Amino acid sequence: MAESGEEKGGALVVVGSVAIDTIETQADRAPEVLGGAATYFAAAASFFAPVRMVGVVGSDFPEADLDWLRRRGIDLAGLEVRAGRTMRWTGRYHEDMNVRDTLSFEANVFDGYLPTLPAAYCEAPYVFLANIAPELQTRVLDQMRSPRLVGADTMNLWIETARDELAALLRRVPLLIINDEEARLLSGERNVVRAARRILDLGPTSLMIKRGEYGVLFFSGNSVFSAPAYPLEEVFDPTGAGDTFAGGVMGYLAATGDVSPAGIRKAIVYGSVVASFTVEAFSLERLRALTRDDIERRYRQFVSLTSFDVA
Amino acid sequence: MAESGEEKGGALVVVGSVAIDTIETQADRAPEVLGGAATYFAAAASFFAPVRMVGVVGSDFPEADLDWLRRRGIDLAGLEVRAGRTMRWTGRYHEDMNVRDTLSFEANVFDGYLPTLPAAYCEAPYVFLANIAPELQTRVLDQMRSPRLVGADTMNLWIETARDELAALLRRVPLLIINDEEARLLSGERNVVRAARRILDLGPTSLMIKRGEYGVLFFSGNSVFSAPAYPLEEVFDPTGAGDTFAGGVMGYLAATGDVSPAGIRKAIVYGSVVASFTVEAFSLERLRALTRDDIERRYRQFVSLTSFDVA
Repeated sequence: MAESGEEKGGALVVVGSVAIDTIETQADRAPEVLGGAATYFAAAASFFAPVRMVGVVGSDFPEADLDWLRRRGIDLAGLEVRAGRTMRWTGRYHEDMNVRDTLSFEANVFDGYLPTLPAAYCEAPYVFLANIAPELQTRVLDQMRSPRLVGADTMNLWIETARDELAALLRRVPLLIINDEEARLLSGERNVVRAARRILDLGPTSLMIKRGEYGVLFFSGNSVFSAPAYPLEEVFDPTGAGDTFAGGVMGYLAATGDVSPAGIRKAIVYGSVVASFTVEAFSLERLRALTRDDIERRYRQFVSLTSFDVA
Repeated sequence: MAESGEEKGGALVVVGSVAIDTIETQADRAPEVLGGAATYFAAAASFFAPVRMVGVVGSDFPEADLDWLRRRGIDLAGLEVRAGRTMRWTGRYHEDMNVRDTLSFEANVFDGYLPTLPAAYCEAPYVFLANIAPELQTRVLDQMRSPRLVGADTMNLWIETARDELAALLRRVPLLIINDEEARLLSGERNVVRAARRILDLGPTSLMIKRGEYGVLFFSGNSVFSAPAYPLEEVFDPTGAGDTFAGGVMGYLAATGDVSPAGIRKAIVYGSVVASFTVEAFSLERLRALTRDDIERRYRQFVSLTSFDVA
């Protein structure tokens, strides 16, 4: 993220899981609903920029969901449809919605999947490697010609089981977007600032640490930016909040091409805005009804949520 | 907090505990150091406004500490010195410094203490009822002539054991400053926004919910303000962070008399600034060396920590 100032935007490639989720909260249950990190990311980013999705689904994946993604302007040329079942995830949230248990996980058609990008994708200036094995993230990155900005996510599993592959990947990822637990595990530091300093020594020049209902901290060089989460009276389903945050961030950056410090701060607020809508309903339901006007309105609410006078 | 705009400031009365603490962290231990909610509050507020302290200490209380408080311009006419031992508290912080255990507590001279205000205190326009039994907080409030702004804190113990007295007090407290755990217990709501709505039905028109390293949420009418905590590489001792936050808030409000929404937001940031210094060393050590310039410098860092462009 060495460049700065307004530049031309462009298409955004995302690779990651596309899944069918079953989600249980204390209040309700949503069986067999649209899920997956790449799905949430792409839907969020599609409010800002042209998105090109890379992933795999089974032959059971609902055509209606594919249609909806296409109607959102998401290019699905990179989404393979393989014989078999789509990835399945079942999770249950505690009363404290910051905590959830995975009740079951089936990789299904994702097992053995090797992402291959359509030729047109390789020229895209923006790419996001959502949470999948670092080996697969690397494979995608290798296929990109010369992306202007590479963002990535990861998870505890890869930090613990694929450390070397992840380390090699991180040296090629200028923007890492992970949550606080992952930041602690990756850095070995409990304190979030020290964790960030360590991670910025691993390759990324910019780091966004997602803290759920407490918002996001952004570290780059010696600069720190803190964005709150939007205070909601009701969180129906936190699933995908982090992925839609990343989607909003990368989508805004891809749309504007503005990766200056000020541009990135705006992108973080847009990401927070989209994430705040995501959790208002199960799965991607709230995003289906969302408009760009809704987003702009809540962006202004973030301004009033955080503004105070200079001394 | 019905008034708004710039008004004349004035003196700030605080009542609460004055104690000798023994603090253990994972890294270090500070035996028999200055502590107590009123002490932290008064020291913080004294950077902004004239403070008048109400409390009790034993004959063992260090003269050097009294001298330091006086040098900070804190009026100690309301601080009784009784034969016996000063209140003692011993606490141990977990590796996660958001969690601590009380290892021992002795009320000592605080046992049976009934706060009585020097006549001059009763005219003060600002008063803060730090965390003591609601019955004692009420007793102090009853002695105030016609305060312009009343702030208060409380704790789980009183919410659980003195609910009625607390409820009666809250109807007379326009500004409540408590932490998230207390807000949940007081409201019976886990969600912080719903908790705030419930508490604003109990009497206070303004509510600040302290969330430790995650900052503060401020609720008043339909307005919400989110202030982050200052991201620190090292938190040595979180003791007194909440009390110095409240001290900074009330001190700034007392100094300026500006209880407008904009004035309160600035006060919250000043409170956050002082709290961020407090945790940089054991006990009140960091505040002993603190200057108003340090405070103004960090206030500007809060501006850069939180600023982003309007869309």
